Amino acid sequence: MEQLLKRLRNYLLIPASIQLSLIRLAGRRVQSMENWRATTRLLNYCSKKLFDRRSSPNYLNSTRCRASGCIYHFDKTCRSLNPYVANYQENIHTLCHSVSSLSTNCWNSGSAHSRRFSSESTVIQRNPKFSTINPDDISYFKKILGERGVVEDEDTLNAVNMDWMRKYKGASKLMLQPRSTEEVSQILKHCNSRCLAVVPQGGNTGLVGGSVPVFDEVIINLGSMNKIISFDKVSGILVCEAGCILENLISFLDNQRFIMPLDLGAKGSCQIGGNVSTNAGGLRLLRYGSLHGNVLGVEAVLANGTVLDMLGTLRKDNTGYDLKHLFIGSEGSLGIITKVSILTPPKLSSVNLCFLACNDYASCQKLLLEAKTKLGEILSAFEFLDANAMDLVLKHLEGVRNPLPSSIPNFYVLIETTGSNETYDKERLEAFLLHSMETGLITDGVVAQDINQASSCWHIREGIPEALMKAGAVYKYDLSIPVEKMYDLVEEMRTRLDAKAKVVAYGHLGDGNLHLNISAPQYDDNLLSQIEPFVYEWTSKHHGSISAEHGLGLMKANKIYYSKSPETVQLMASVKRLLDPNGILNPYKVLPSSFSIQQ
Amino acid sequence: MEQLLKRLRNYLLIPASIQLSLIRLAGRRVQSMENWRATTRLLNYCSKKLFDRRSSPNYLNSTRCRASGCIYHFDKTCRSLNPYVANYQENIHTLCHSVSSLSTNCWNSGSAHSRRFSSESTVIQRNPKFSTINPDDISYFKKILGERGVVEDEDTLNAVNMDWMRKYKGASKLMLQPRSTEEVSQILKHCNSRCLAVVPQGGNTGLVGGSVPVFDEVIINLGSMNKIISFDKVSGILVCEAGCILENLISFLDNQRFIMPLDLGAKGSCQIGGNVSTNAGGLRLLRYGSLHGNVLGVEAVLANGTVLDMLGTLRKDNTGYDLKHLFIGSEGSLGIITKVSILTPPKLSSVNLCFLACNDYASCQKLLLEAKTKLGEILSAFEFLDANAMDLVLKHLEGVRNPLPSSIPNFYVLIETTGSNETYDKERLEAFLLHSMETGLITDGVVAQDINQASSCWHIREGIPEALMKAGAVYKYDLSIPVEKMYDLVEEMRTRLDAKAKVVAYGHLGDGNLHLNISAPQYDDNLLSQIEPFVYEWTSKHHGSISAEHGLGLMKANKIYYSKSPETVQLMASVKRLLDPNGILNPYKVLPSSFSIQQ
Repeated sequence: MEQLLKRLRNYLLIPASIQLSLIRLAGRRVQSMENWRATTRLLNYCSKKLFDRRSSPNYLNSTRCRASGCIYHFDKTCRSLNPYVANYQENIHTLCHSVSSLSTNCWNSGSAHSRRFSSESTVIQRNPKFSTINPDDISYFKKILGERGVVEDEDTLNAVNMDWMRKYKGASKLMLQPRSTEEVSQILKHCNSRCLAVVPQGGNTGLVGGSVPVFDEVIINLGSMNKIISFDKVSGILVCEAGCILENLISFLDNQRFIMPLDLGAKGSCQIGGNVSTNAGGLRLLRYGSLHGNVLGVEAVLANGTVLDMLGTLRKDNTGYDLKHLFIGSEGSLGIITKVSILTPPKLSSVNLCFLACNDYASCQKLLLEAKTKLGEILSAFEFLDANAMDLVLKHLEGVRNPLPSSIPNFYVLIETTGSNETYDKERLEAFLLHSMETGLITDGVVAQDINQASSCWHIREGIPEALMKAGAVYKYDLSIPVEKMYDLVEEMRTRLDAKAKVVAYGHLGDGNLHLNISAPQYDDNLLSQIEPFVYEWTSKHHGSISAEHGLGLMKANKIYYSKSPETVQLMASVKRLLDPNGILNPYKVLPSSFSIQQ
Repeated sequence: MEQLLKRLRNYLLIPASIQLSLIRLAGRRVQSMENWRATTRLLNYCSKKLFDRRSSPNYLNSTRCRASGCIYHFDKTCRSLNPYVANYQENIHTLCHSVSSLSTNCWNSGSAHSRRFSSESTVIQRNPKFSTINPDDISYFKKILGERGVVEDEDTLNAVNMDWMRKYKGASKLMLQPRSTEEVSQILKHCNSRCLAVVPQGGNTGLVGGSVPVFDEVIINLGSMNKIISFDKVSGILVCEAGCILENLISFLDNQRFIMPLDLGAKGSCQIGGNVSTNAGGLRLLRYGSLHGNVLGVEAVLANGTVLDMLGTLRKDNTGYDLKHLFIGSEGSLGIITKVSILTPPKLSSVNLCFLACNDYASCQKLLLEAKTKLGEILSAFEFLDANAMDLVLKHLEGVRNPLPSSIPNFYVLIETTGSNETYDKERLEAFLLHSMETGLITDGVVAQDINQASSCWHIREGIPEALMKAGAVYKYDLSIPVEKMYDLVEEMRTRLDAKAKVVAYGHLGDGNLHLNISAPQYDDNLLSQIEPFVYEWTSKHHGSISAEHGLGLMKANKIYYSKSPETVQLMASVKRLLDPNGILNPYKVLPSSFSIQQ
């Protein structure tokens, strides 16, 4: 034992070139680390020549990419597309048969009445029963909202018609900006009676085309409903309007020494209403669970204008069906969320991070189990990457060095702890590492000593998408798969593809969320046909999910059967008809087009 | 600081008579403490002369009250009722206008076609559209289930027609015991086509009359579906059939070094399907959250026999509406849950408990906030009781002593921590207590030194209901109220009732769950009229819930508007009609009778 302890102490100091050892972060430094991570993620996006244009009123009047601090001019022509961009996001196989055909299909082949969104999928028809906006509608909306709340300006509409990734572009002629639930109700009542289709829009940061129009749907932007209504410091329950930007809520809570139970790279723009409507996952899910557990109540407006007050602020309430869950993750297709009540955890002051080497996937699994038991209540992240992922990062990203240069493991694991006592957390992490060395689960490892070293470790994990893009063409899949079977898919894919492409795997092991990437010199239909539908069939066969956290939106509406049984999809469609009989709320999304047509 | 530390050390030793100080529990001892708590709770029930007869097949063939180890003979006549018994449970105001009239109304005044369940509420009519069982039905069920699965024996039916508290008694002539989802599906398909009403029944431990028939509904008992299907030690995800008894799952997981995220006094009998159907709360909610967060998937059978496979085993799955939540907490009125997938936390080895004195409610609130921050990730219980509650316990329960005899505080707080490191947890708790003394939030306190001392502290908190019953008549209310306003209701009630009755308050402060009790020498209609509807109106006005964790069942179906808006209840009714157009699933429960009649 003594000897092992000595060995651990030693190896903590071995990688002298980068001098990583234990960090103790508290107060402002923790905040800084969070900021660093968010900034790095956003810079990753920006480095891919994506132009950031937000749909909230502030962003509409600005060309600044806020979180990165850089200034990018928005490309009004919207015609050029980096071939890698469309493949940067995950779960895009329905659209990325070839990126050039995608962009053509999406923007150039569309007409006012039909659009073809994939070389594989059916052409989407505009639902002929939907009306088109007329001057009387405009007058009515101006009467309800005033001139400021009715936006017809072409430049603004160009921006809000397009999604964050510039993959989808609608042709809406009208954006409405209500300032109250009553205004949302009046808008929807009118739209429902006139059979005008609508798209609810928050920060427009979604990745599956869910937050922009497909044709001429009216955009209802919630950005003006951005008040914090109440915060109870005893219970930690926050109540706010749907348009509050996530980062603003994080800042507000930080002053109260609380945190939001979710954190996303897009936090500078995304809105809590959108987060809840899409059941956003993010970085804190491993620790704090999903929004179905943390959201205590919502206020939502149905298609016919009925306001559902389910804005409970209680941890326990068993008085009938808990209908708020219908609105969490339904992507605005059942109602528009106008207010949210959410349980927020207290802010903890101690963060530690280590970067470890494992010889095989079985060890990664066992290490996760050990971490859950030994680190238990302080475990806040458990990420993994395989050797192929590390090779790519080292080869394609500048300034990145391997924290474990003397090791050649098959897998790397990044573990973060967050707790309330620096000394205890540090000692607990050390004991865990010692035990893991002793049992052979890890073969090498470092513990970050300061925020820069922690950043270096995070940068390896978060730099993988950028490295993949620099390496060439990439087919990306974001899958939830039971942890014990997760890497079987990777190995089967390697066998299947042989030397035709490089199979790279990484992801949120703690959440069972695999990012599977196939890297090849160029896009190739033959290669794609060997990947798909195999990857979806395999995922489906193993009770996995084809969308771990991004939702279905427009992109994957027709792929739903890979993850949902026909009976469940049928019931979804029935629920949709019940709540939105005219189908005006976010049409063509979530449900397969066969149901949209029926409706 | 030095002085304060000394003071803390001293006061930890002051109550020499009971010699409480720090305990360190690990491994088997922790398990023993859990067992003690469960056993004590069950013995409390037994001591009230309640006879325990469970509806699962094992229980049906036995007269043993398992968890207590005592043998009680079941009273077949079912006519005598201890006047306190009906008032033991919480949230009964709709039925406890007077207990004698309740028992008369419930059991003696009912006919085959109508029943009067309260002196205040409307008479419930049997829905005339429901058929009655005929010999062809019996033959059909025997063909599906075999002779063993079709129970017509009078003694057995007497037992399963009656609820755990012996308050409600139906008149079913038939209990079915399916052994598979397919059998449940075939049963429901037949019942739906014949318009035969059914009651799904798990362990029959509910407290609101939700699990027994009102008239002659067919009982579908899930007890034979009790297999554990799979357990993933890496992810901690358990998949099992609905009829698994909670305690069996806890034992199974204990061997794997995991725990269930919920724990209940009734765990020896209640079934996981019933737990999920009623969204059971219990002791671990503060730490692990509600079942909406922990249940990852369910398999459910709809009224028409359609099997919905939503048995996901994934932490992240955003592929469409998450319809499983409709079945969590809908008390079997939308479908019968047949399988459950649930995320289970790792078992932690260190448990500590302290019992503290606070001068005012504001200090209790602040202490909760401090505990959340300082104990953060190891906090596992935060209970409170006021001085009236302590007085009652000391006066009416034998062998109970005040752990803080030299203090006369207005409030007592019980805090439990559960973590993975004895030394760290102990030191953290001590630091928290020192800080709380320093800031004046607590005026006195003790930390339990062993399992017996911890048991003594828990016994004070859990003995309050028994003490209340011994004190005389009691009107009990189980309410969820925002923590900061919770005690306002107690004080307003005291002002309102003046010296006519004693107002006693205790509960799960960490969950915002108040147990409000009005203790009086005898039941009195005038007193009741001063309590109700005031208590419900006050709760409603402050966005509280009239049922924190027990559900609505039959007891509170007509009180739903105190906690749900008319629009929400209307939508609930629409969802009910959508999923169960003939209304055969658990009729007369959850929704107000006006909707049952419509349906």
